[in-house]
Amino acid sequence: MPDIKQPATYHSMTDPQARPRYTGVATFFRVPFTQDLTEAEIGLIGVPYDGGVTNRTGARHGPRAVRDQSSLLRRINAATGVAPFDTCRVRDLGDCWIEKPYELVGALEEIAAFYRTVVAAGVTPLSVGGDHSISLPILRAVAASGPIGMIHVDAHCDTGDDYLGSRFHHGAPFRRAVDEGLLDPARVVQIGIRGTVNDPDHWGFSQRSGMRVLLMEEFQDKGWRFAAEEARRVVGSGPVYLSFDIDSLDPSQAPGTGTPEAGGLMMTEALRLLRALRGLDVIGGDVVEVAPPFDVGSLTAFNGASVLFEILCLLAEARERRSAAG
Amino acid sequence: MPDIKQPATYHSMTDPQARPRYTGVATFFRVPFTQDLTEAEIGLIGVPYDGGVTNRTGARHGPRAVRDQSSLLRRINAATGVAPFDTCRVRDLGDCWIEKPYELVGALEEIAAFYRTVVAAGVTPLSVGGDHSISLPILRAVAASGPIGMIHVDAHCDTGDDYLGSRFHHGAPFRRAVDEGLLDPARVVQIGIRGTVNDPDHWGFSQRSGMRVLLMEEFQDKGWRFAAEEARRVVGSGPVYLSFDIDSLDPSQAPGTGTPEAGGLMMTEALRLLRALRGLDVIGGDVVEVAPPFDVGSLTAFNGASVLFEILCLLAEARERRSAAG
Amino acid sequence: MPDIKQPATYHSMTDPQARPRYTGVATFFRVPFTQDLTEAEIGLIGVPYDGGVTNRTGARHGPRAVRDQSSLLRRINAATGVAPFDTCRVRDLGDCWIEKPYELVGALEEIAAFYRTVVAAGVTPLSVGGDHSISLPILRAVAASGPIGMIHVDAHCDTGDDYLGSRFHHGAPFRRAVDEGLLDPARVVQIGIRGTVNDPDHWGFSQRSGMRVLLMEEFQDKGWRFAAEEARRVVGSGPVYLSFDIDSLDPSQAPGTGTPEAGGLMMTEALRLLRALRGLDVIGGDVVEVAPPFDVGSLTAFNGASVLFEILCLLAEARERRSAAG
Amino acid sequence: MPDIKQPATYHSMTDPQARPRYTGVATFFRVPFTQDLTEAEIGLIGVPYDGGVTNRTGARHGPRAVRDQSSLLRRINAATGVAPFDTCRVRDLGDCWIEKPYELVGALEEIAAFYRTVVAAGVTPLSVGGDHSISLPILRAVAASGPIGMIHVDAHCDTGDDYLGSRFHHGAPFRRAVDEGLLDPARVVQIGIRGTVNDPDHWGFSQRSGMRVLLMEEFQDKGWRFAAEEARRVVGSGPVYLSFDIDSLDPSQAPGTGTPEAGGLMMTEALRLLRALRGLDVIGGDVVEVAPPFDVGSLTAFNGASVLFEILCLLAEARERRSAAG
Amino acid sequence: MPDIKQPATYHSMTDPQARPRYTGVATFFRVPFTQDLTEAEIGLIGVPYDGGVTNRTGARHGPRAVRDQSSLLRRINAATGVAPFDTCRVRDLGDCWIEKPYELVGALEEIAAFYRTVVAAGVTPLSVGGDHSISLPILRAVAASGPIGMIHVDAHCDTGDDYLGSRFHHGAPFRRAVDEGLLDPARVVQIGIRGTVNDPDHWGFSQRSGMRVLLMEEFQDKGWRFAAEEARRVVGSGPVYLSFDIDSLDPSQAPGTGTPEAGGLMMTEALRLLRALRGLDVIGGDVVEVAPPFDVGSLTAFNGASVLFEILCLLAEARERRSAAG
Amino acid sequence: MPDIKQPATYHSMTDPQARPRYTGVATFFRVPFTQDLTEAEIGLIGVPYDGGVTNRTGARHGPRAVRDQSSLLRRINAATGVAPFDTCRVRDLGDCWIEKPYELVGALEEIAAFYRTVVAAGVTPLSVGGDHSISLPILRAVAASGPIGMIHVDAHCDTGDDYLGSRFHHGAPFRRAVDEGLLDPARVVQIGIRGTVNDPDHWGFSQRSGMRVLLMEEFQDKGWRFAAEEARRVVGSGPVYLSFDIDSLDPSQAPGTGTPEAGGLMMTEALRLLRALRGLDVIGGDVVEVAPPFDVGSLTAFNGASVLFEILCLLAEARERRSAAG
Repeated sequence: MPDIKQPATYHSMTDPQARPRYTGVATFFRVPFTQDLTEAEIGLIGVPYDGGVTNRTGARHGPRAVRDQSSLLRRINAATGVAPFDTCRVRDLGDCWIEKPYELVGALEEIAAFYRTVVAAGVTPLSVGGDHSISLPILRAVAASGPIGMIHVDAHCDTGDDYLGSRFHHGAPFRRAVDEGLLDPARVVQIGIRGTVNDPDHWGFSQRSGMRVLLMEEFQDKGWRFAAEEARRVVGSGPVYLSFDIDSLDPSQAPGTGTPEAGGLMMTEALRLLRALRGLDVIGGDVVEVAPPFDVGSLTAFNGASVLFEILCLLAEARERRSAAG
Repeated sequence: MPDIKQPATYHSMTDPQARPRYTGVATFFRVPFTQDLTEAEIGLIGVPYDGGVTNRTGARHGPRAVRDQSSLLRRINAATGVAPFDTCRVRDLGDCWIEKPYELVGALEEIAAFYRTVVAAGVTPLSVGGDHSISLPILRAVAASGPIGMIHVDAHCDTGDDYLGSRFHHGAPFRRAVDEGLLDPARVVQIGIRGTVNDPDHWGFSQRSGMRVLLMEEFQDKGWRFAAEEARRVVGSGPVYLSFDIDSLDPSQAPGTGTPEAGGLMMTEALRLLRALRGLDVIGGDVVEVAPPFDVGSLTAFNGASVLFEILCLLAEARERRSAAG
Repeated sequence: MPDIKQPATYHSMTDPQARPRYTGVATFFRVPFTQDLTEAEIGLIGVPYDGGVTNRTGARHGPRAVRDQSSLLRRINAATGVAPFDTCRVRDLGDCWIEKPYELVGALEEIAAFYRTVVAAGVTPLSVGGDHSISLPILRAVAASGPIGMIHVDAHCDTGDDYLGSRFHHGAPFRRAVDEGLLDPARVVQIGIRGTVNDPDHWGFSQRSGMRVLLMEEFQDKGWRFAAEEARRVVGSGPVYLSFDIDSLDPSQAPGTGTPEAGGLMMTEALRLLRALRGLDVIGGDVVEVAPPFDVGSLTAFNGASVLFEILCLLAEARERRSAAG
Repeated sequence: MPDIKQPATYHSMTDPQARPRYTGVATFFRVPFTQDLTEAEIGLIGVPYDGGVTNRTGARHGPRAVRDQSSLLRRINAATGVAPFDTCRVRDLGDCWIEKPYELVGALEEIAAFYRTVVAAGVTPLSVGGDHSISLPILRAVAASGPIGMIHVDAHCDTGDDYLGSRFHHGAPFRRAVDEGLLDPARVVQIGIRGTVNDPDHWGFSQRSGMRVLLMEEFQDKGWRFAAEEARRVVGSGPVYLSFDIDSLDPSQAPGTGTPEAGGLMMTEALRLLRALRGLDVIGGDVVEVAPPFDVGSLTAFNGASVLFEILCLLAEARERRSAAG
Repeated sequence: MPDIKQPATYHSMTDPQARPRYTGVATFFRVPFTQDLTEAEIGLIGVPYDGGVTNRTGARHGPRAVRDQSSLLRRINAATGVAPFDTCRVRDLGDCWIEKPYELVGALEEIAAFYRTVVAAGVTPLSVGGDHSISLPILRAVAASGPIGMIHVDAHCDTGDDYLGSRFHHGAPFRRAVDEGLLDPARVVQIGIRGTVNDPDHWGFSQRSGMRVLLMEEFQDKGWRFAAEEARRVVGSGPVYLSFDIDSLDPSQAPGTGTPEAGGLMMTEALRLLRALRGLDVIGGDVVEVAPPFDVGSLTAFNGASVLFEILCLLAEARERRSAAG
Repeated sequence: MPDIKQPATYHSMTDPQARPRYTGVATFFRVPFTQDLTEAEIGLIGVPYDGGVTNRTGARHGPRAVRDQSSLLRRINAATGVAPFDTCRVRDLGDCWIEKPYELVGALEEIAAFYRTVVAAGVTPLSVGGDHSISLPILRAVAASGPIGMIHVDAHCDTGDDYLGSRFHHGAPFRRAVDEGLLDPARVVQIGIRGTVNDPDHWGFSQRSGMRVLLMEEFQDKGWRFAAEEARRVVGSGPVYLSFDIDSLDPSQAPGTGTPEAGGLMMTEALRLLRALRGLDVIGGDVVEVAPPFDVGSLTAFNGASVLFEILCLLAEARERRSAAG
């Protein structure tokens, strides 16, 4: 059987990451694509769904754009030395497939079904949205055996109530997740919250349910180290999900998103915050709300890919620890 | 008389702000448009004039772009709880109408005439430029009864002298305003000043006249809290105008402006600075120099709208206080 | 009562169209905005809905972008001499209000209800989408009393069947319209059809039902005059609706659309085609699928506004004829 | 005296055109810059003035953008074989210097004074605007000794009357030029005219004064060959000026302009039209209304540079003929 | 072994083309990616190499951008009914791997080696560049057994000679191909040639060697049907390669390319031209010079993908004929 | 001899910097262009070469873009009062001319030869790249008489080893410079280093050779003042070169670069850092890796020009000191 030329030197054919970064089919971080779950320990998954958006759509194109920009990342985290691809089998599982995108409630349940299969296979999921409504069905799979903690970086609490006749939208996933017993509000921290609201009680559910809401002003005053310490204190040693809404970043860092809010985190702060979460038992994560049609110079997708890499490093370390403890 | 369908629930037809934010004719913050001054307490006014520019024009398109992006804002300031639309009748008065835009001196006087009518009607004006030359005629109306104080956030002092044969241009409004007895220089603070200059005496008029020039380097060293305190100290309890030139912001926050200067304020700083001015007797304000043709991803217009909202909150509170004191 | 300064010369305050084109709140063609249907003979209506899209969304932002670009048009059609604003009361009725945008079937019926009110008031509707799914509910109102003819300019027949579990989406409105007795297929012409398809029978419904499908290749070979003649022949003298999908244009003319197809109409051809339809009994029309997040330099919105103006001229002439015939 | 390294082969240092096209200071077509008029036979001149604009400014940045894009052109016209740089000393004379840009009437007279010097030196001027108001002062110099003919390619006749209180603006230069005895209307042809107008008599002055107005529709019907023949017939063998407004092109070819009109010339047509004018006694020309802030991908500036090259070829041939006839 | 959820209806998991077009990892036309050559009959191959460029680089990013935009295409050519994916096994073979990109001559030979493997496996290659220098090494593989014919659509003949010291660059591949006995110049047609040149003999090699050079002006005068007939006449019934340089298109259709030339083919013409080549014995093809960093709105990549699809249809039909004849 | 009109007032013709900033041929800071080295004390030089890039090219267009944006700068550094054009003859020497750009090793040597001429003429070179590979040949000229110190601001150490078969590329110049005895590693400081790496020993050469590597995290923690102090301590009083890679900046400040790394310096920090280096014996400098095809809104080029101005001020002061000491 003839085979495509194997480069004789430097790196083997099976390592697309070693090639010049502008080459090759764009998978996340140029890892191999597979649909065979037994090949993966950590599964990178796109969820191209933005049917839960309340204003500007476009996050359905997020997974492709983040895949493309993730080529600019390399194999080792220079700040921490973590090399996730060396310690875990990381695979691009492609995109979650939604048969009935026009029906919001059903679409979310289709996403949940997809993730239940992934989780049942023992794969740690790391997802790229899509709008924030996708975190709810992911939690249905990840937290199937009981409420978990969450570190939630976002401009909005996303614990709103019904909007325009729907209980499910990108402003409400975490209220629904508490309702459904997926999140333990006492183990939830929300970081970067800010902006304008329509309802004087907008962050009310978060606060009343016991979540720790770390407003942007407090973040500014006390810094990323404090925020990381608070996060560690709140979530403790139990299993925790990490949800990163790209609109937590300042709009100059993430113009390509549906509901920007002025005055947010800088990437210098976000990267330090994430790296300071090493050692937590992170069991899944997502980067959501990258909306490429509103992006400029692919900056949002690039920063999204950079955040994704940090979360990947956290997941790889946590998984290794669990294996070692196993 | 047949009428367009009234939505039966959630919000009445008369509240366009309650609708999805991408809908409807784009007025400032989606407030009602009117030309009847008796309807308004605070009047949002566009001044689409950039005839005073010394380099890159385009600020004439600023009011439309800020109107469009202001839809991304909502009704309540989450940081302060201020709800300006609940406490004041805020209206979009449309754009100031200039009959002879080709003639700089005359155009400025037309603007002044427009604002005299607004002020005479008891309406507090909040304007969107247009280049900075428009602040002079606005002050002619707002400060008609005597010199007032000013908090001026800008990369430039705008107290230059004649340029290319003209006494009036966007680099000189506040020298002219002092000349005309509209500003009390001892009650003027200029924040964010920086960049390169052609004239070694460039900030000289500001300094000699007694204005407090808070250079960007001092701002960096001492922070927004110090700047706000200095501003409060300088302007005191008397009436004060707030002029925010978008080029005070770092070009990464406001690329769409005519004369950018590297290394400016971040929105995180600008928002905190403005919120720290609560309690002052602000009687008018403007956001100028948003030049949409140079903008990317509407970021400048969005940040301009966010600043506009903060000033609106200050004006609403100040007006309420004056009414209560009334 | 104090009133905003009235310009003394040139044009009265009540004519915003006379002002410099970059000024003022952006209504369609800068006509007055009203919600009082008795003021309007022709109503320009935005339908910011793109829930029926099968690929790239963004058409929900179409009405605003077309409003903004329509300022570049003036009052008289230089090619035909038609002056629609002089002969008809043309008003911007704002955007159709949809309470339950997450529910496709219900949203379409909400649109229908809105248009039934408009039509009942005797107003001729001219709409800007939104995606092409909106034409179905508009037809429910416009063709309530029996099937009408249609001139449909588009890259796609939009007579497909169910897709991803939904009978209603932007690829199917005109099959559903025939099903519902709103269109007489023998009086329907579809112009500009081209591209790639997934189903070998893709244009089948159109052809079997008796619609005249004028493929792009035939258009290229025979020209706009032939197409206009065919259109006139097919629709005859009865009432006809004119639906213009911006993706009928070549992507170089309309990059900002959800489902572009290479090799389409040039604006030179589209304008001539539309002008050659004078004299038909056009009773309504729409311009759909302008998707600003994918636009470059606002070209698509500008061309959309230019097409909108041509349809407005046709509607104004037709309405005048009906009045005269009255 | 040390000198910068001379490349030893291929092309001498004195020929910047031979270098890779992305290199070097961007003069027009990378010809040498000089302020010594005795060095030049044809002078390429920027006129960075847009004070005569009625809507969107930005043409002041046109000369720089056209200079930059003109690097993509080479030394020989492949279609005609004309090699203008071989037969004439072509120089970049820099930009016309305007001391009082805020004063429209005076600025135009400053431009005229500049061009009188150029013309007095025997230099044939080829200009890049700037808005179309600049053609009037250029004509004051070029046609100082009596009215000349003009081939005018444009979407607008630019023979309007006063606007917003000014007799001089970019919609009126050629009415003023007739008034001032600079143009012989019987020897003027205007090609590409189209769009919408505010005044029913908009093209009236052109038509009544005897100009040949070749509307876009006639151009479409009869083609570039007919237009070129008409132009030749109208202007005859006398001296003729060639003014090319970039908005004559279809907006898909020239999005970066202040007042686009849908449905214009394609570059394929414009190039053929210009090449078919060989043999006329062209004594000057301009390309105006390239407005870079509205451009996308520098397409307008590139097409402007391509048109400029064609006019340069016409000027070089005409100048050679006059010399030979000399 | 757990497997990712299989959608139960509509289309099987193995057909990514059936999914919504914005989903999934972006391979060419969403066909499966493979490195096993026995799986493929037609191999889509990216060649991300632009080391042969003489001016603006960026074509190295072409394969990814064309892959992304190719999702907008579907399975069946509506104009011809050809369904290439049904009749051939079409696979994305990924990108050609170049170990020493800094060395032009060696890099080209690496490309040749890659293609020799592909051709030896009986796979018909259809490539996406990269700059036009890549066509030479592809021809080394495809025409290994003797000179073949070529239909070459381009703004440039690309039969230049040495430039800046190199015999190999993107302006010379076809001179080198004749030198190396890969092309029979008598069976070569070059369509769309135009622009400016530095060397008066620029098209000389093409003409002297016997290639049919169909200049843009002739194309304009005689049309796509004539060009197709000429192409058929010139290449006859023997094997022919089809090379499509995206800069053959008008810059309004393909702004994203390194060396644009004003006034080129429209996509309407290119598509008809390509479809009129059915029946020829096309044995390979390429689309080159898509340079995404210069693209606007992905238009060039989209048109490139549309051209690629047409060539794919030609290759699929030709391969079927050869099999049938086999 | 007729001469172009001399403006009578304000500024003489010989000072293009005094004119409105959008006018004139774009040289660096609008200083005069010359090829006569005796005219210059500080020579601004473009090096439009990006043949050493490992990922995204485009820096070859850097010099032009920085020239264009540098017009936004003026004559005096408002922060320090330094007026470099008053104290030194600063000239734009045009672009370094490379005859064989396809051959990396030779091209670098051509650059070295160019700079040897410049240095031999006593001109202090300040360069704009181009990619970072150009710093090696510049150092060959500047450090010809022995190893010098370097302040290197960058996201990457650029002390890597062979890549894809080449010893020379933009990731290795400073390892080669140490190898060649041009840099004294004990007098080298590298500031802003961060990101991801492929090789666990990526910063190894820097650290082992004795360079001071100031990682981004340390910079964040300790601030620009500390970084400046470290730099002063490391380089001491001997001659020092200043190399500023624009990718040291945060991608929100410099999106237009080939290998961005998330979370970098802000311009507020970079400007302060550079100004704090006054008094060092800086003998040359460069700003590299500005890649305009990836830029948005020219922000990267503008910030690059702003950094260039700061380095120019340092060079002017240092040269004056040497002269005074001389």
